Amino acid sequence: MSEAWTDWDHIVKVDPDKELAPGDSFEDVCRTGTDALEIGGTLDMTEEKMQAVIDACAKYDVALYQEPSNPAVVVDDDALDGYLVPTVFNAGDVSWVVGAHKEWVRLDEIDWDRTFTEAYIVLNPDASVAELTEADCDQTAEDVAAYAELAEHMFGQPIVYIEYSGTFGDPEKVKAASEALDEATLFYGGGIHDYESANTMAQHADVIVVGDLLHEEGCEAVEETVEGATDATAQRI
Amino acid sequence: MSEAWTDWDHIVKVDPDKELAPGDSFEDVCRTGTDALEIGGTLDMTEEKMQAVIDACAKYDVALYQEPSNPAVVVDDDALDGYLVPTVFNAGDVSWVVGAHKEWVRLDEIDWDRTFTEAYIVLNPDASVAELTEADCDQTAEDVAAYAELAEHMFGQPIVYIEYSGTFGDPEKVKAASEALDEATLFYGGGIHDYESANTMAQHADVIVVGDLLHEEGCEAVEETVEGATDATAQRI
Repeated sequence: MSEAWTDWDHIVKVDPDKELAPGDSFEDVCRTGTDALEIGGTLDMTEEKMQAVIDACAKYDVALYQEPSNPAVVVDDDALDGYLVPTVFNAGDVSWVVGAHKEWVRLDEIDWDRTFTEAYIVLNPDASVAELTEADCDQTAEDVAAYAELAEHMFGQPIVYIEYSGTFGDPEKVKAASEALDEATLFYGGGIHDYESANTMAQHADVIVVGDLLHEEGCEAVEETVEGATDATAQRI
Repeated sequence: MSEAWTDWDHIVKVDPDKELAPGDSFEDVCRTGTDALEIGGTLDMTEEKMQAVIDACAKYDVALYQEPSNPAVVVDDDALDGYLVPTVFNAGDVSWVVGAHKEWVRLDEIDWDRTFTEAYIVLNPDASVAELTEADCDQTAEDVAAYAELAEHMFGQPIVYIEYSGTFGDPEKVKAASEALDEATLFYGGGIHDYESANTMAQHADVIVVGDLLHEEGCEAVEETVEGATDATAQRI
């Protein structure tokens, strides 16, 4: 399953700490047309909560990845296709770049064939991930492009992830990152809530990520964003 | 010339800010038997000083790499085989992990075909590089092994560099790093001053780096360390 994400248009990020929207089941989530579920969150995560989501989704035809926020919550389960591990390139605290990762490698036997990193560029200063990582969100389009190029060429990152979690970002910055990359895959997350917003960002990003939308609005709204993302891919080809 | 270092046993690091030892010329340096010169330093570096060393060494049969300490001193010269750019994995300040690098990428057009990174693990707390980067040098052999594995597998680093600059390090930590690596090349620098010290560290490290020895003792002493390093390689095969 290595580099499966090169064929993806859309990801649903599932926070095991939050309820699904009223009336939705995990079967509905898996049938939205999304390419993959990325299971993870930053607050109050536990291994049990992670496992419950994996168990509910394993039988459907959608890729299942864990995005561990810290080494303690990593679930070892064959139902998972793998692990997408965040590293925050514009963090102010080194533990979010390489420090926590080193602790994980020290404590565990890592299965490198299915463990991959996502090079985050965190751009919404009001997001909890920005506070937690002490991210420097004051970045021009040129800065974002430089981070993307750096991540791919100096640090071998297969995925660059522009994260505006909580707000819709600046398409010009996403475009700048896209133009700076040769082969790495560009993820975009933040403020995607309908066909139009997904379609706009998917003009530049390879993969659109929705998270809050699932828990707050539900699977019908997610389906619209899947359509917006896949239509943009078709338009770009 | 990509990945030339996989065949190297020995590097001389030349600090353009320092004089050669009395009686030595750059021709003597290039004829010590070392595989490569790595030109760079951390203090008071200027492009002119760099260029003078390149000009003096270009005609000899030894690989020439610049190790830029900051973007302002990068020399664009075809006589260079390439650039080895340090990133300090146990730095306390993110600018030494990815920050200064991002500024360089933003300001310059990088020639990625001949630009490579060295993942430093800085282990002598009394060294100026440790102070400058606010490195956490309190690392067990297991920690060092974890950094090495992390650098290779999560951050695509072709070179891991154990740096004890100013003192002879703990061979057990170098051994631990060596055992943690699959394909990345292990550099060792610090306190190498004769055949024995070079031979001891080269039991574990792929490439031995000497720097101060060149400027303080001269080329004859360097030659001894080349022999110690190459003999160890022969013994390991």
